[in-house]
Amino acid sequence: MSRASRAFLFLASVSLPVSIAKADEGMWTFDAFPAAKMQADYGWAPDQAWLDKVRTAAVRLTGGCSASFVSDAGLILTNHHCVATCVEQNSTAENNILKTGFTARTREEEKMCAGQQAEVVTSIRDVTPQVKAAIANSTGEAAVKARTAIVAQLEKSGCPDTAKTRCQVVSLYGGGQYKLYSYRKYSDVRLVWAPEAQAAQFGGDPDNFNFPRYSMDASFLRAYEDGRPVATPQHLEWSARAPVDGEATFVVGNPGSTQRMFTSEQLAFQRELVLPITLAAFSELRGRLISAMESSPEKEREAAETLGGVENSLKVYIGRVKALNDPAFTGKLAAAEADLKATSAGNAAIGNPWGDVAKAMSTYRNFYIADRFSLPSGDLFGYAMTLVRAAAEKGKPNADRFPGYSDSALPLVEKRLLDERPIYPWLDQLTMEWSLSKSREYLGADDPQTRILLGKESPEGLAARLVNGTTLADPAVRKALWEGGQAAVDASKDPMILYAKSIDANDRAIQKRFDAEVDAPLTAAQAKLADARFAAYGDTAYPDATFTLRVSYGKVAGWMERGKMVPTTTVLGGTFDRATGAVPFDLPPAFIANRSKIDPKATYDFVTTNDIIGGNSGSPVVDRQGRVIGAAFDGNINSLGGNYGYDGSINRTVVVSTAAVQEALENIYPAPHLVAELKGK
Amino acid sequence: MSRASRAFLFLASVSLPVSIAKADEGMWTFDAFPAAKMQADYGWAPDQAWLDKVRTAAVRLTGGCSASFVSDAGLILTNHHCVATCVEQNSTAENNILKTGFTARTREEEKMCAGQQAEVVTSIRDVTPQVKAAIANSTGEAAVKARTAIVAQLEKSGCPDTAKTRCQVVSLYGGGQYKLYSYRKYSDVRLVWAPEAQAAQFGGDPDNFNFPRYSMDASFLRAYEDGRPVATPQHLEWSARAPVDGEATFVVGNPGSTQRMFTSEQLAFQRELVLPITLAAFSELRGRLISAMESSPEKEREAAETLGGVENSLKVYIGRVKALNDPAFTGKLAAAEADLKATSAGNAAIGNPWGDVAKAMSTYRNFYIADRFSLPSGDLFGYAMTLVRAAAEKGKPNADRFPGYSDSALPLVEKRLLDERPIYPWLDQLTMEWSLSKSREYLGADDPQTRILLGKESPEGLAARLVNGTTLADPAVRKALWEGGQAAVDASKDPMILYAKSIDANDRAIQKRFDAEVDAPLTAAQAKLADARFAAYGDTAYPDATFTLRVSYGKVAGWMERGKMVPTTTVLGGTFDRATGAVPFDLPPAFIANRSKIDPKATYDFVTTNDIIGGNSGSPVVDRQGRVIGAAFDGNINSLGGNYGYDGSINRTVVVSTAAVQEALENIYPAPHLVAELKGK
Repeated sequence: MSRASRAFLFLASVSLPVSIAKADEGMWTFDAFPAAKMQADYGWAPDQAWLDKVRTAAVRLTGGCSASFVSDAGLILTNHHCVATCVEQNSTAENNILKTGFTARTREEEKMCAGQQAEVVTSIRDVTPQVKAAIANSTGEAAVKARTAIVAQLEKSGCPDTAKTRCQVVSLYGGGQYKLYSYRKYSDVRLVWAPEAQAAQFGGDPDNFNFPRYSMDASFLRAYEDGRPVATPQHLEWSARAPVDGEATFVVGNPGSTQRMFTSEQLAFQRELVLPITLAAFSELRGRLISAMESSPEKEREAAETLGGVENSLKVYIGRVKALNDPAFTGKLAAAEADLKATSAGNAAIGNPWGDVAKAMSTYRNFYIADRFSLPSGDLFGYAMTLVRAAAEKGKPNADRFPGYSDSALPLVEKRLLDERPIYPWLDQLTMEWSLSKSREYLGADDPQTRILLGKESPEGLAARLVNGTTLADPAVRKALWEGGQAAVDASKDPMILYAKSIDANDRAIQKRFDAEVDAPLTAAQAKLADARFAAYGDTAYPDATFTLRVSYGKVAGWMERGKMVPTTTVLGGTFDRATGAVPFDLPPAFIANRSKIDPKATYDFVTTNDIIGGNSGSPVVDRQGRVIGAAFDGNINSLGGNYGYDGSINRTVVVSTAAVQEALENIYPAPHLVAELKGK
Repeated sequence: MSRASRAFLFLASVSLPVSIAKADEGMWTFDAFPAAKMQADYGWAPDQAWLDKVRTAAVRLTGGCSASFVSDAGLILTNHHCVATCVEQNSTAENNILKTGFTARTREEEKMCAGQQAEVVTSIRDVTPQVKAAIANSTGEAAVKARTAIVAQLEKSGCPDTAKTRCQVVSLYGGGQYKLYSYRKYSDVRLVWAPEAQAAQFGGDPDNFNFPRYSMDASFLRAYEDGRPVATPQHLEWSARAPVDGEATFVVGNPGSTQRMFTSEQLAFQRELVLPITLAAFSELRGRLISAMESSPEKEREAAETLGGVENSLKVYIGRVKALNDPAFTGKLAAAEADLKATSAGNAAIGNPWGDVAKAMSTYRNFYIADRFSLPSGDLFGYAMTLVRAAAEKGKPNADRFPGYSDSALPLVEKRLLDERPIYPWLDQLTMEWSLSKSREYLGADDPQTRILLGKESPEGLAARLVNGTTLADPAVRKALWEGGQAAVDASKDPMILYAKSIDANDRAIQKRFDAEVDAPLTAAQAKLADARFAAYGDTAYPDATFTLRVSYGKVAGWMERGKMVPTTTVLGGTFDRATGAVPFDLPPAFIANRSKIDPKATYDFVTTNDIIGGNSGSPVVDRQGRVIGAAFDGNINSLGGNYGYDGSINRTVVVSTAAVQEALENIYPAPHLVAELKGK
């Protein structure tokens, strides 16, 4: 379990338990694909060679998305929303490519994406014995320290070539298994093609997570190394054909996080404590952004992707609140828990992990607010905290470092810190002011932590002073502090650096408390829950999502919604029927200009029963022949409870078809050279 | 039960059940004060003469607050936050009296408060037999129509002098009792004195609902009639003494609404459906306001009171979410329900009202979203809807009208419509855009009601077009349409009027459905629940709050918070210790300028165990001798669950003392003529 404010920061500390698959449910690891079950349901299942071939073409994007190689020259298919920040950062008031779309006519025109890295799994090794031996019988803080140390060591020794490889130890099945994932990494990723944002986001927030849908949520990137495109002979074959109702589909990607085996106490913690705060805080941020963006076209452009991200997250959280307040949904989860308890009764090796989880969650209630509101938001503050922490941590042995600063983690930390990208001070100030005001609100004005965060200043005054005073927006300044290490950080008079230093100790103390009182007992209890599940249900189980490569199988299919069948596909011509002329249902200019050329009957988006979640965005949707026929970009509204459970009758993955992407490359945003590359010509 | 979007619109349709008092719990009607219980607990209790005397000095403000006469010339004590809108509407960029405070040196300087009316109860008559006879055995829509008709008739015949009196039938005990309240009304209310807003709001949202507190949340109004101050010989005696720990206190005022006898189904409806939407929607509005106000000092001033109201409501809703997610709190409610069920078992006359409530709430789940999002927000839209509805309703018999348009209700409707006050188009546009976007979000982009509300326009475009195009900000335009009636409304080309007409029918259909499927069965069921309670617990019961006059008894007392005793009082000098110089803990300039004159030991604010809720703001806090020693202005943080239940060990009322107000009048905002008037000299 990761700390409140640190999702995805340190995957090795994420310990999530195991789920039991029904229908097309499941996010399967490549070494445990349920071929027999699929064979029984579909009359066909892939063999290991098929799986291996697909796996080597699958790409993880460190921005938090999935993707795939689709040509032999490093061309990567993903979603527009996965690269929108890159598009926005390469836009200017004069040349707003987020609005106009972008096509690189030559390799030289391809544009750098700051902070983005593409990764391909090269091996997965079981390191459970080493990790369990290191933890041995220790508990509490000692158990976490022992785990941190062995993980840091395994990751470092597993990938000595830090320029081209990356290693991560991932805890599967709630601490029951530890796997060392090795990746070939490409840290130079460039933008090749993006449609108009309005084509990708047609229907905006109202249509997000809904279907029928008319969205060109696709883009192309290219992986580079040493200034040249990477050779990728293992790419997926491009197939611009329409999907067929009922045909089998595979989604190959990196689902970020699920919580499907939470006990009732963990669900109550979410419903009672976490989600109401999230709902209120994110809604307020949404409102702050909307009003600020309406005040000028520059702000509208500069914060568009931030607002999109906030609205997307908010819709997910609203869906989770709805799911956890739906007695039918929670009843199923409670029944599953009761069944496991009954099946495990009398198994002395299992004991009472439910009680242990309850105790840990009860303890966490005492300091969850302090944990959640220990650090403000904001890119500039993030730079400062990274510099302060890295300076201190690099001086320590690899095994003793704060989460996220081990030798294996530092290269990506450095890339994210030093990559040049625009900073919008007004937006950083807004974000920081908002988060500091939420800290004060939830902690209370008189809480000692509020005094640590604010001193005698107001959130408004402090955010303004720090953002206006810092020079960290300049990459050269960051580079000097990074390379200067502890001495440079100690000597810095930058107000953001001074501020990060002033609140560092408090956050470290909370991390320590979290490790000892929450993470350690929870990991131990969840490992036992995983054991109970394996004993009860055998290999029908799959691990919760961990932003590592998984494969989901399913089929092209609509669903029944309030007594009506929702169709499986939309066609490009439908966009013109749905358009109202008013935001966000206004047509993208290129659609208007090229209307006569666009095939109105070409498949646009479609739905499948595949089981996915955030992090799967951009995943290739692959047919039985291993060809890519689309890129997954969304779930339907019923899938918003997917964090806690999957219902194959109504949960759907939403996909933009290769047919639509090729139609766009041929007739909307003409790029014949890309079509040729995709066709391997 | 009132419809989702219509709190307080038509009190006669509010049917709320009966609560059982423990400790100092209870919002008692003046004809059922529990003297024996108080005598037993306190060794003293007021007699009827004492109660009658206090009652005649109590004032209800139609803006949603309580107050009291405190001189023989119509001087009214209430809270600053109850008059802040009036202060803000009388402010300009050049003379911002919200910021500087205001003291009328002469009667001529006293300033009109738009829409505000002061009301004093003159009689309360039991009309239960008439109402029950009219309803007879009818159910569903017929029952609601019969009730509406008899209520309209009773109110009209009870108060023939509509210039000076107002009648309201109020349903107590969930439809078990109907009482006809007659009021002497004063529709000309003027502002006499207000401190700097920063003195009233010191500590802002962070300190709201917290204690220790340093707030001068007091103001004076004056009631006028025929251009002259009203003679009020029945006023309360002013006593600027400090409160004594443990002394008995009475709060006399108009608690707005409580839901203490909700069944488990009604609580689930709140927790699962109503509150998450409220939390998200209000938080977003808060954010939109904050960002918009930061863009200019004018907007900062113009929306300050709107934001204050939103933040106050939001804090209440967050408190309610917390209460309903607290197993200890809800456990007590569940135990009370179980006890009532057990005690009522076998009583055939009671039947199964819990099941009836569950059925009604289950039905309401089907159209709650439609109901809640049937009309947009905004003052200009509100004017338009009132004009459209009033024109149609005035042509119908009094008994057949839409809620809120009976003859007895129309005078206040007219006053609120025609009173001159500033309109800020940007703020109306922001509010309307927000509410329309929430309608689309929760209904869905493809819902038929979304099409009725938006047509093919966006929330942004529609709100801009209507607000920019309407002339309803001009009171003369509103007057012409009001007096011109149906013909004038039919002929109007004002876009806001046309829009109100276009969405009227849909909202009326929802009202009809609500009456038939929710209000009627719920009222019948709640009346039976009230019978069950009376049978089980006798007269230890009090009705839920209905924004009618109540008296609460209690005592001056602190409470234990996380193992520490919170003190009972604060002193004026504490303000200087708490000030940080940063908003909202910056000192009001008059406090700085007059620091040497201010008695640092003078009592500022204090807490009592009285049981109050929103609507009680401004209520006089009265001692055993019937003298006013403060004005209630807030509850403590634990009282935020007070909507559903009261816990005498931790729920507290927060009061600004008369001692502090007099110190302010003598040494901070010198007004010797007011001090003399209060002392009766």
